[in-house]
Amino acid sequence: MKCSTLGIGLAGVGTVGSGVILALRRNGDLIRDRTGGAVDMQVTKALVRDLSKPRAVALPQEVLTTDWKELVADPSVDIVVELIGGTTDAFEIVAAALKAGKPVVTGNKALLAERGVELFALSKEHDTPIHFEAAVAGGIPIIKTVQESFIGNRIHSMSGIINGTSNYILERMTTAGLDFETALGEAQQLGYAEADPALDVNGWDAAHKAILLATLAYGFPIDPAMVHVAGIEQVRPIDIDFATRLGYVVKLLAVVREHPNGAVELRVQPSFIPKSHILASVNGVFNAVAVHGDAAGESLFYGRGAGQDPTASSVVADLVEAARSLRQATGHRGFLPYRESGQLLPIENTETASYVRFDVTDRPGVVAEIATELAKEGIGISGTHSPVNPESPDADFVDMVFLLHTCSFGKLQATLDRIEQLDCVNSSPVVFRIEKL
Amino acid sequence: MKCSTLGIGLAGVGTVGSGVILALRRNGDLIRDRTGGAVDMQVTKALVRDLSKPRAVALPQEVLTTDWKELVADPSVDIVVELIGGTTDAFEIVAAALKAGKPVVTGNKALLAERGVELFALSKEHDTPIHFEAAVAGGIPIIKTVQESFIGNRIHSMSGIINGTSNYILERMTTAGLDFETALGEAQQLGYAEADPALDVNGWDAAHKAILLATLAYGFPIDPAMVHVAGIEQVRPIDIDFATRLGYVVKLLAVVREHPNGAVELRVQPSFIPKSHILASVNGVFNAVAVHGDAAGESLFYGRGAGQDPTASSVVADLVEAARSLRQATGHRGFLPYRESGQLLPIENTETASYVRFDVTDRPGVVAEIATELAKEGIGISGTHSPVNPESPDADFVDMVFLLHTCSFGKLQATLDRIEQLDCVNSSPVVFRIEKL
Repeated sequence: MKCSTLGIGLAGVGTVGSGVILALRRNGDLIRDRTGGAVDMQVTKALVRDLSKPRAVALPQEVLTTDWKELVADPSVDIVVELIGGTTDAFEIVAAALKAGKPVVTGNKALLAERGVELFALSKEHDTPIHFEAAVAGGIPIIKTVQESFIGNRIHSMSGIINGTSNYILERMTTAGLDFETALGEAQQLGYAEADPALDVNGWDAAHKAILLATLAYGFPIDPAMVHVAGIEQVRPIDIDFATRLGYVVKLLAVVREHPNGAVELRVQPSFIPKSHILASVNGVFNAVAVHGDAAGESLFYGRGAGQDPTASSVVADLVEAARSLRQATGHRGFLPYRESGQLLPIENTETASYVRFDVTDRPGVVAEIATELAKEGIGISGTHSPVNPESPDADFVDMVFLLHTCSFGKLQATLDRIEQLDCVNSSPVVFRIEKL
Repeated sequence: MKCSTLGIGLAGVGTVGSGVILALRRNGDLIRDRTGGAVDMQVTKALVRDLSKPRAVALPQEVLTTDWKELVADPSVDIVVELIGGTTDAFEIVAAALKAGKPVVTGNKALLAERGVELFALSKEHDTPIHFEAAVAGGIPIIKTVQESFIGNRIHSMSGIINGTSNYILERMTTAGLDFETALGEAQQLGYAEADPALDVNGWDAAHKAILLATLAYGFPIDPAMVHVAGIEQVRPIDIDFATRLGYVVKLLAVVREHPNGAVELRVQPSFIPKSHILASVNGVFNAVAVHGDAAGESLFYGRGAGQDPTASSVVADLVEAARSLRQATGHRGFLPYRESGQLLPIENTETASYVRFDVTDRPGVVAEIATELAKEGIGISGTHSPVNPESPDADFVDMVFLLHTCSFGKLQATLDRIEQLDCVNSSPVVFRIEKL
């Protein structure tokens, strides 16, 4: 299926909008290949505030407009991407696009949490989809997971660290002993917190996301006014100290849980989490959502919760979905091999540090003999050890372990083949990789 | 959109097949609701070896057949689910279904890794989808993530713990000091390892999954004979000891990585992973895949890698996809609110243990006064502490912390309101949840 190019109307060319343009430029060919040529997209209209402002990511002047109505109505625009934020103009844009039968992609959690009921009704009425993967947890595909992968699951609970700014501040308070104000200032300097960080630190950014997740999982609209929300402004070093001493870490946690009577618990509060729980190791600006489904069991989805590229990644995935829905593409969803062949790296050329265990006859000179063979090939040794068996300290056959510097697996194997020929070596050496990750 | 029931031809009614039947029975209504009535499914034909064998999950006798051709050809069968395993009969069934234009759902990693090229070609030729979320990492939606959520990402690497049996054995060797044979025996007794555990412990089960993931990410068919695979049979207690002492844990790791020249590194080997890395905390039969995309950055997907319900969860999600493709359902993908209203649990009724910080005037009797108010409401105290400031040990105003047993938030708030009225308490107490998770 070969198709003409689909036009994107991009409302908002800030950080994320620029990221979308860059991602489409960088990986447009890849997307075409992966979709068998079915999806080819280009920004044909972009809504900006100031036509003359210099931009890091340039667009042709004729693409720019300051009038959102023009953007939505433009015949070259097949899909509308809303990235301007807020709940007033953004609402108008999304509503107009849906009414015009143009699929919408948005990352606007406040809009959907506050006015989702109206927009979902419009989407249904006009049989036009609205996609919003970017609204929750940046680059983590948690929306698709709940909507599609867990569609056959009754969802018992979702526990999420879904505000990266709060998580960064809490981590700095924990590891560097900063107080709240200092950690917030640092987050602002690093660009992790907005100039007005209110929605981040008062818990409402996380609450908007939790409301969206709960709406998907349980299928009914939720009034934000009914949700209990507390932020991290109240957290003080003494709380962090206590948590640490008691084996906990402090996280801003969104909790969504279905009770046996069908009632849904939904709250955002600073929480003590046991240090051993996997959510406790979600640090910095990362996000994670633990989902417990009746069939899937416990799952965790972890990744970057914000930022230009991760959020753009989700917008682009939604764009492909939207494009497919326009094309009414049947069947395949980008998974078939799209190249006839590719190059597999020969295992000989793969490189890591290594752990090698030899079964040797224990006599003076063994280490020297093995080390000499390694040295001939320039393979560095970072450690060697032969555990002494206290019950028979003079045993003839012992295990001897070498930790080796990074080298190619081919060179290592060839060297080990020669070492295996040494009289003192009794069997094939055992090799494990030491992964850097 | 109201539709008639779709018929499923279930080839294989073993552990996973029974799980699929149970999941559809348990959550069929939920799926109908979530898809706006578009997806309603029923098993109309089931392939078994022995018609008379008693089954834990009963099916009407007329649904059963021992002839796969009958199953595929039956006009009541709209979608074919292949769960018999192996690469011979399974191949015939899948190929016949695709040729008949019936979408296929399979969890057969060996089939797809060994003969995927042929089957993907048939799928394309007959424009009939083949879904295989259940083939990799049980209940973790890693296939959909790579196929759809990361479609706009160049995938730098994927590192996976994707064989639960190996991971369980390695964990038992690490935490209980067992040798390989004993740990394997234990895994077999617990039902985590097959009677013939060869494919699990020799690394090939993980390799089949890694091949599938790499094929999706890089789009070209991969010959299993070209992949370097080593299993965990060689791991001995001495290796575990060394890893522990050096700050590593031993895991069977599948590594998929694209090199700058386009070559793809693909291998499965026992590996030392730094203890601080999130993959190191993937224990027992859990699986996890760390994916690094050029836009999304680092992500991790964690969950149950096998078992009846988690694998059935993925099969059911694929069945919904397949059903949608048959219905050519446009737009919505199950995310719109499907109920007009639902019950939100009042925050007062939510229950956890709590951490409460009071700002008190430090004089004898303060603890008693607060404790008395708590006792009146039957709220237990598990600890209390007031840090002494060494610089002014007799300061008038101090922070006093209470750790409280689980009680309802409403009762806690009411009690705290009263405590706030005490003369010795100077401001509103600060409450954090202590989450159980």
